[in-house]
Amino acid sequence: MPSRDDLKRDAASQAADLIQGGMVVGLGTGSTAAFFIEALATRKPDIVCIPTSERSAAQARAGGLQITDFAHHTSIDICVDGADEIKRDSLDLVKGLGGALLREKLVASAAKRLIIIADSPKLVDWLGTTAPVPVEVTPFAWELTAARLAKLASTVTRRASPNGVPYLTDGGNYILDCGFGAIADAAVTDRKLREIVGVVETGLFVGMAEMALVASAEGVSRFQRS
Amino acid sequence: MPSRDDLKRDAASQAADLIQGGMVVGLGTGSTAAFFIEALATRKPDIVCIPTSERSAAQARAGGLQITDFAHHTSIDICVDGADEIKRDSLDLVKGLGGALLREKLVASAAKRLIIIADSPKLVDWLGTTAPVPVEVTPFAWELTAARLAKLASTVTRRASPNGVPYLTDGGNYILDCGFGAIADAAVTDRKLREIVGVVETGLFVGMAEMALVASAEGVSRFQRS
Repeated sequence: MPSRDDLKRDAASQAADLIQGGMVVGLGTGSTAAFFIEALATRKPDIVCIPTSERSAAQARAGGLQITDFAHHTSIDICVDGADEIKRDSLDLVKGLGGALLREKLVASAAKRLIIIADSPKLVDWLGTTAPVPVEVTPFAWELTAARLAKLASTVTRRASPNGVPYLTDGGNYILDCGFGAIADAAVTDRKLREIVGVVETGLFVGMAEMALVASAEGVSRFQRS
Repeated sequence: MPSRDDLKRDAASQAADLIQGGMVVGLGTGSTAAFFIEALATRKPDIVCIPTSERSAAQARAGGLQITDFAHHTSIDICVDGADEIKRDSLDLVKGLGGALLREKLVASAAKRLIIIADSPKLVDWLGTTAPVPVEVTPFAWELTAARLAKLASTVTRRASPNGVPYLTDGGNYILDCGFGAIADAAVTDRKLREIVGVVETGLFVGMAEMALVASAEGVSRFQRS
C-alpha cells in the first residue's frame, strides 16, 4: 500500500514530465508542490521559476533551480500547484491551507496552464465539504471583516500559528478559515467574499485549473475541466 | 479672500458640530481631516475615536482624544473624512491621495454616517477628471497587476515617496495611481478593478457618503446624495 507521500510524489513526477526547456514555471506551495520542486531539482531542466512563497523559493534555490520574478516575466508557461479540494467536474479549487493563497492565485492567474497535483482524497463532488475556505484579510479591522464573513459562512476562525499567535501571510495579512459546507456555486461565493472591504483574496480558484493529476493506489488519473 | 486652509477649517468646524457625547467617531486622513481632528481636540467632546492612519491617530492622541479600535466597537456612529474628488450629484468619491484608502474605506464602511468635508475645488461633475484613482495593490507581482490595470486605465503610475522609493501604505502595499479621465459609471469601474487579482482596494467610494460639507468663499454648502 503506497503512502500518501508516495502518491503525491507520483502525481508530482507526472507533472514534471510536462516541463520543457525554456519554460517559465510557476512553483506552488505545500507538501505536494514540494515533491514537484524536488522532481525538478533532480531533473534540472533549463527553465526559470517563479515561486509562490519564500518556502518554495528556498527549496528551489537549494535544489539549484533558477528563480525569476514578474519584473522579468509577466507570463508563465505552466504553473504546478497542489490544492486542498478539487471539484471533480469543473476543477474549481479550494487552496490556501499552506497560507500562500494570494501569491498562488497571482502566479496561477499569470499562467497559460495551471496543473494541479494531488492525492485522491482531495477530489470532491462539492467544494467546502472537507476543508474550510481560507480568506486572506487585512489585519486592520479584521474583527469587522470577520463579522461580515460570518453572515455568509457558518464558521469563521482566525488561523493561528503553532505558538498561538495569529498566523501572518507572506504579505503580512491574516487568514480567516471560513466553513461553508457544500458550496453550490463557487463563482458566486467567491464574488460575494471579494465584495467585502478588507478581503484581500479568497482561496476559491474558479475556472483556473486546466488539468488535475490525481494519484491513488491504482495510479495517476488525469482530470480535464468539463 | 480666505485661503484654502481657511475653507477646509470652516467645513471641518461644521462637521465637528455634528458630534455628540457618547459617539464612536471615525477619523479620516489628510489635510482637511486634520482640521476636523484639530476642532475635536479643541472642543474635547466625550467620544471615542477610530483613526484611519497612524498619522491621524498620533494627532488625535496628542490632542487628548480617546482612541479605540474594532476589537471594542464594530460599528461607528459617524465618520468624517476628506476626499480628492466628490461627484456633485451622487456624492461618489475618489479618495486615497493621502495613502490611507484601505483603512478609510474600512472605517467608512462601518459608519452609520459618512460625512465628507472639502473645499469647493474638490466638487466635480465626473470623477476621474481632476485626480487619478489610487489603487492599493500587493507588492508581489505588482508589475503583473499594473499591466492588467493598464487595460482599463490610460495611465498607471506607481506612487513614490519623496525620497524616490516606492510609497508603502500602512498595510505594506503599493499604490498605483490610475488615470481614467471622466468615469461614466464609478460602480462598474470599481467592480472591474476589484476583480483583478492583486488589487487590495480601490479609491472609488461608491454610495457611501451621506453628506458633503463643501466650503467656498461664500460659506459652507451642504450637499446630500441625490
